[in-house]
Amino acid sequence: MNGGTMQNGTAAVVVDMAAPPQRNFLDGEEFRRQGHQVIEFIAEYYGSIGDYPVNPRVTPGFLRNRLPADPPSRPEPDAFSSALEDIRDIILPGMTHWQSPRHLAHFPASSSTVGALGEALAAGINVVPFTWAASPAATELEMVVVDWLGKALHLPESLLFAGGGGGTLLGTSCEAILCAVVAARDQKLAEVGGKRIGDLVVYCSDQTHFAFRKAARIAGIQREHCREIATCHDDMFAMSPTELQACIQADVDAGLVPLFLCATVGTTQTTAVDPIGKLCAVASKHGVWVHVDAAYAGSALVCPEFGDVMEGVELVDSFSMNAHKWLLANNDCCAMWVKEPRALVAALGTEQEYILRDAASEGHEVVDYKDWTMTLTRRFRALKVWLVLRCYGTDGLREHIRSHVRMAEGLEAMVRADARFEVVTTRRFALVCFRLRPLQSMGGEKTANDINRALLEQVNAVSLGPYVSSAKVGGMYLLRCAVGSTLTEERHVKDAWRVVQDQASAILAKMERLYKDLLQLPYPSY
Amino acid sequence: MNGGTMQNGTAAVVVDMAAPPQRNFLDGEEFRRQGHQVIEFIAEYYGSIGDYPVNPRVTPGFLRNRLPADPPSRPEPDAFSSALEDIRDIILPGMTHWQSPRHLAHFPASSSTVGALGEALAAGINVVPFTWAASPAATELEMVVVDWLGKALHLPESLLFAGGGGGTLLGTSCEAILCAVVAARDQKLAEVGGKRIGDLVVYCSDQTHFAFRKAARIAGIQREHCREIATCHDDMFAMSPTELQACIQADVDAGLVPLFLCATVGTTQTTAVDPIGKLCAVASKHGVWVHVDAAYAGSALVCPEFGDVMEGVELVDSFSMNAHKWLLANNDCCAMWVKEPRALVAALGTEQEYILRDAASEGHEVVDYKDWTMTLTRRFRALKVWLVLRCYGTDGLREHIRSHVRMAEGLEAMVRADARFEVVTTRRFALVCFRLRPLQSMGGEKTANDINRALLEQVNAVSLGPYVSSAKVGGMYLLRCAVGSTLTEERHVKDAWRVVQDQASAILAKMERLYKDLLQLPYPSY
Repeated sequence: MNGGTMQNGTAAVVVDMAAPPQRNFLDGEEFRRQGHQVIEFIAEYYGSIGDYPVNPRVTPGFLRNRLPADPPSRPEPDAFSSALEDIRDIILPGMTHWQSPRHLAHFPASSSTVGALGEALAAGINVVPFTWAASPAATELEMVVVDWLGKALHLPESLLFAGGGGGTLLGTSCEAILCAVVAARDQKLAEVGGKRIGDLVVYCSDQTHFAFRKAARIAGIQREHCREIATCHDDMFAMSPTELQACIQADVDAGLVPLFLCATVGTTQTTAVDPIGKLCAVASKHGVWVHVDAAYAGSALVCPEFGDVMEGVELVDSFSMNAHKWLLANNDCCAMWVKEPRALVAALGTEQEYILRDAASEGHEVVDYKDWTMTLTRRFRALKVWLVLRCYGTDGLREHIRSHVRMAEGLEAMVRADARFEVVTTRRFALVCFRLRPLQSMGGEKTANDINRALLEQVNAVSLGPYVSSAKVGGMYLLRCAVGSTLTEERHVKDAWRVVQDQASAILAKMERLYKDLLQLPYPSY
Repeated sequence: MNGGTMQNGTAAVVVDMAAPPQRNFLDGEEFRRQGHQVIEFIAEYYGSIGDYPVNPRVTPGFLRNRLPADPPSRPEPDAFSSALEDIRDIILPGMTHWQSPRHLAHFPASSSTVGALGEALAAGINVVPFTWAASPAATELEMVVVDWLGKALHLPESLLFAGGGGGTLLGTSCEAILCAVVAARDQKLAEVGGKRIGDLVVYCSDQTHFAFRKAARIAGIQREHCREIATCHDDMFAMSPTELQACIQADVDAGLVPLFLCATVGTTQTTAVDPIGKLCAVASKHGVWVHVDAAYAGSALVCPEFGDVMEGVELVDSFSMNAHKWLLANNDCCAMWVKEPRALVAALGTEQEYILRDAASEGHEVVDYKDWTMTLTRRFRALKVWLVLRCYGTDGLREHIRSHVRMAEGLEAMVRADARFEVVTTRRFALVCFRLRPLQSMGGEKTANDINRALLEQVNAVSLGPYVSSAKVGGMYLLRCAVGSTLTEERHVKDAWRVVQDQASAILAKMERLYKDLLQLPYPSY
């Protein structure tokens, strides 16, 4: 076409496409050269990750102030290699290293070689499977792996394609919960009339992740119509079906419309487990959609010994878990299953003819995932989940979960063995929640939270020490150690506990000195 | 800790962690071995991608029926290598190859070596930067690159951090639009009262992407309160400010509350451009939030010659574009900018103390991106965008865009030179919209759509031919050729046009025969 003459049936035209020779930004040879560098870079990172502080000692602006204010016009020579150097020298030292074996904060961001490389493969192949036709194998692989994953987690058949339900892979639990709320909302409004959106009420506990309140708000539920059932220590912070029943009944009596219950298996703060079956029994009486958020603990369900937390799950309307949290399927990967996919499609499906709507999707033999979720563009996440299941097998995943649970058991035993500490909530999975016991000689409950907060800060400040997080439940400030980083070994847990003990000793000694001094002081004059 | 005795300040405890030796699922050496295989696999795929039909000839179930119904318990030996073989032999042949140089359908899913490898790096490093503290360098790099990208696209300073606004990187335009709608909604409801959610009205044109209606619905806007301003061929399917004004006024007169306008720069069907400045003038009179969706055409703004489409953009409240569509930043990557970040945070921010909320974020010197968007978990997308800008430079990105625009110009000229065809809407970027002209001898407009639909089907059925999509505007069915796949060269466009011409010749000849036969037939008896 470079200025040549072309012939066609009815006319001849000279097209001038004279231009500089086209650069290939997707050249296979360049990809090879840069790609092998990247693999070495990541492998070296895994090898040296223990040398970084888990949480960097940086102050806001440390990186913004260091980078130029404008993008370059022309790249420097071999820009890719020098960018890799900058990642190593400037960016990595400012990262929180979620893959560090000493990362015990939050919940894990579970990585594996196969999960990371599944992402790399999906990025390289780079398809957009928004409909079956837009990449048939990607859609079908997703349908297969959500059933595989559901079976691996011992989900009821009713949530699987094999049983008339079905699943999909999203980015996050926030999306899953939002899709479920919107599906439930539109189903309910179809019954009671769209104008009653202001009367809808949703239910959770005071332990439910903020993601749920956020999803409900996004869906247009009035902020004051999100009921948080109070939990207590005696119930291990699980939601009470009796309280739920009372709360729903009060709303019904007030002329409001109960819509949705978000139950949690493994809450963020303490991995509390809401009693699914009993909650469903209450919800079903009032036509309330029940979603189970098992973002973290869902991964543990590959082990049949955790089956008891799922009692009654066959009654739920939808279920989600994050395979990127603890199932080796790198960020991001949330799996959601629903009993009635048509409720999702009714709320989120396309009305108009889509540009490339084709015979296959009109025949309803296939799923167009764009109609199941909030987004149209989507990534080919099924590839990495398939690779993880295929390459590790359910046995491998169980081994993975059990090794962390075993380490957490060990940590829990060590905490219990130190009389200065108490385990605040009995460990269920691989999170240990503990605190320094309140000491009457040092202000009792009143100062306990301050002391434990100081302990957390001291622990996290120890050079090359563990990175631990906190929670506040029932008025108590506690420390959370979530064993789950892929690289964490027993020695890291043992070391972490030693750091906690040492810092506790230091704080308690300091407090003791301080209180002794105080007691000798005259009564303050103010 | 293997059953040993440990000492601490107050107690000794024997912890039995006896267990099988722990397997390392993130072993650097295994990552190396598998990673280099993956790089070779992808490089070979790029080398052979032209050998695949762009859109596979498969029927629903082709892959589901072939894979086992259950995940394996134990992996086979060297499962990773055999999985790669299966990807090559079973999965790739069932994919739509969005990176094929002959993929001219939809809009491109723009890949580059650096974009793909940026994803691989982010997946390997695998952090979850939901707050500044959860990975400071990831948050700060995101703040830097959204300003870089905004400057590269010639966005007004008011949308950048540098000018008091700010941006973030999301997955898709659907998310960006939803976040903007929710921010606008809550801002408006704070004025008029939360109970009036049922009175809110949103505006778009009949060309606006379905993503907007979906976002509005998710946000709880009544379905019947989404106004679609009709467009017409004479205005090149751009939204009319006069029509918008009339429509808003009618809603105000009816006691409703105008909320939100979604204007588009580069619509999906024909890349129409709504007149931003004039629409903003109308919207501002009624307190309507204006969002610009430049999902596709936003990338072209790196070239100053496209600046005219942005006239008035300094007046908008929010703006989004997909760097994964045409800016070499592999799927997924939507950049969103807002003039007032606090409106986002007010709608989407966390109320309660977050588990690891720390001093830095309380000082408001940093951004906690979890409060800007729908999701809490997020990926480290900034890394790939930074790599793309750094390694290609704005000059490289312009070269990339201009090469596609030049090819599209060439295609447009070829279409115009063939009297059988007409260019339906004048090309603006790199999408060419055309059809076979209606022929009076063959039923005129009445049959034109059927003939063009048949043409599309025939073109897409040609073995190793181009993959083209369609649109329907102003009652006309037309063919869309979007030049934008990174591997597309002039010869592919030339070949594609030859296929279209050949198939047109065949269809027209067949039609001619058919009509001649029909005219000789007796009048049908029914």
